[in-house]
Amino acid sequence: MSVNVFSAGYLREVGTRIFVGCGAPPDEAALVAEELVDASLMGLDSHGVIRYIEYVMRVREGKTRPGAPVRVVKETPTTAIVDCGFNFGAVSASRMVEIACEKAASQSIACVVSRNSTHIGRLGGYAQKVAERGLFCIATCNSSKHGHWVVPFGGKEGRLATNPMAFAAPTSGLPVVLDMSTSAISEGKIRLLMAQGKEIPSGYCQDAEGNPCTDPEVWYGPPKGTILPFGHELGYKGYGLSLLVEIMGGIMAGEASTEDGSYVNGFALIAVDPEAFCGREKFVELMDNLCSYHRSCPPAPGFTEVVLPGTYDFRMREKRLKEGIPVTDVTWKQIKECAATVGVTVPEPEESLCL
Amino acid sequence: MSVNVFSAGYLREVGTRIFVGCGAPPDEAALVAEELVDASLMGLDSHGVIRYIEYVMRVREGKTRPGAPVRVVKETPTTAIVDCGFNFGAVSASRMVEIACEKAASQSIACVVSRNSTHIGRLGGYAQKVAERGLFCIATCNSSKHGHWVVPFGGKEGRLATNPMAFAAPTSGLPVVLDMSTSAISEGKIRLLMAQGKEIPSGYCQDAEGNPCTDPEVWYGPPKGTILPFGHELGYKGYGLSLLVEIMGGIMAGEASTEDGSYVNGFALIAVDPEAFCGREKFVELMDNLCSYHRSCPPAPGFTEVVLPGTYDFRMREKRLKEGIPVTDVTWKQIKECAATVGVTVPEPEESLCL
Repeated sequence: MSVNVFSAGYLREVGTRIFVGCGAPPDEAALVAEELVDASLMGLDSHGVIRYIEYVMRVREGKTRPGAPVRVVKETPTTAIVDCGFNFGAVSASRMVEIACEKAASQSIACVVSRNSTHIGRLGGYAQKVAERGLFCIATCNSSKHGHWVVPFGGKEGRLATNPMAFAAPTSGLPVVLDMSTSAISEGKIRLLMAQGKEIPSGYCQDAEGNPCTDPEVWYGPPKGTILPFGHELGYKGYGLSLLVEIMGGIMAGEASTEDGSYVNGFALIAVDPEAFCGREKFVELMDNLCSYHRSCPPAPGFTEVVLPGTYDFRMREKRLKEGIPVTDVTWKQIKECAATVGVTVPEPEESLCL
Repeated sequence: MSVNVFSAGYLREVGTRIFVGCGAPPDEAALVAEELVDASLMGLDSHGVIRYIEYVMRVREGKTRPGAPVRVVKETPTTAIVDCGFNFGAVSASRMVEIACEKAASQSIACVVSRNSTHIGRLGGYAQKVAERGLFCIATCNSSKHGHWVVPFGGKEGRLATNPMAFAAPTSGLPVVLDMSTSAISEGKIRLLMAQGKEIPSGYCQDAEGNPCTDPEVWYGPPKGTILPFGHELGYKGYGLSLLVEIMGGIMAGEASTEDGSYVNGFALIAVDPEAFCGREKFVELMDNLCSYHRSCPPAPGFTEVVLPGTYDFRMREKRLKEGIPVTDVTWKQIKECAATVGVTVPEPEESLCL
């Protein structure tokens, strides 16, 4: 497997052209490309430029509607339900961030939830945007029933998706950003393990009968297996948290968990202005203090340091901004092919751009 | 070890007399007793009537101040910082629930945080009260630095408390109530395991050097060991969640994590009115649908059913309302002794009351 290395700027340019080719207005196309390249920069390749391919396919299937209006369909000074109109999730989720930040800045706290959203990408990225404006954010993302591969604690049939939750808080430097699924593993990672001929770690999956399963081939079946909530024997905690995500992302917006809705992700975010509490300045000072206190913790045997959530992602971003983003030959070929299906020729990378 | 069985009503009466003896106004005394008896009813004995003893001791040490005013010291229409004045935590936390529900009912969402709170007891109980008014609630509770026995993921020194988080959502029946610590175990449970001559489960604790530790005697040292965030090798998730709790419960209120503040718990809650989203009626309908969907999940081998968070607690409540609350002889003797220190004679249980 050969790997190309491209600059973030080049991959953004490629993505923007592709999404314009899909019918998106240039600013929206650029936003979608930027979100996906950001995920690649941070090392979250499963949510990165590899999604160009799937996003184009969904447009061609009529499931994603480039340029569709993103509209507030119900609101109060502190809340909104946003109909995303099946535009690209990055477009609607970014708009929801704007709305939540505006409302929180004037009302101290706000909650915004989505309807008819497609795939939003990296959840933590939206929480991070809120924190970059000095606000504190909690965000969740569920999936419609078709993504229900995760069992309730003690169950053997899927009832939930991997249901990630995130929070972000500002500091004087980079924000603290937690972005975690409430399940033990994602289907994407099981697929990767299978491709690598590796086993699934113990305690992450069950076969279709609810027995422990570590063999990816067995897991895929048919019949297909299920994924456990994270936490092993304390998995009732991961399960409980996944319900929190389901309620915030789905039920608040009026989506029944039992219906295979046409939406992909149910995105919800709560933004809080620290100014209404200890004050923004004090909040940042106390966050800096918290970060120092934690970083000063001596590592346990087998670890080299204690890091705050998001640290590795920001470090990878630094590295890939300098060294470029690796894209396998297979993925790169598929990206060029999907571009061609919407009439876009991928420009040759210039030496200066592609590193 | 002999066990007495008392009715909830009798134990409430005993508690009310004791807290009145401590100087609390009768209504506040009754509230504190009710919260603790509720925890006992639900089987959470570590947060139940056994705390009568500690609560009296803290009053005698001047750390809890019965009858102290609970005051809003900063507020907006959607937010409040509440100075609990070191009154009993149940009194101030219940007041905070009132404030959050009032604000959420008029503004759709509200966030209220504490300062100078003593021990609030069962976190889930407050989230439950919010849900019983038709609102959705997220609640967190941190502890001042003296309770920092929990290490950051990969660390060997304590930087966090067991930092529970809770959520509650209304249904047409009992609410769904998740109440979980973000650590693998509590110190109280380690103490219990030691008393029972049992080992600590693997992956829950470290000795003072950061090595795995399953022996309670070794854990207590000196030097004393530490507790891990929940999640085992995915413990960075439990760690991240504990930071969320620290930020909401401590930093928002202006408390530095590095200071050994005089407060015991930093309590924070967010209340959301579903009326502003899909509507209260629809929300309950969809919650009922969610619960049925999950309860219908066939159990995995080794399990007999799938239950929603809070189910076991509500079942225990039913059972103990009928059969009474067990209190060991040792605890009962200590409760009578602590009552005597505040000039209260514990009434003999009537046959009809003590079951």
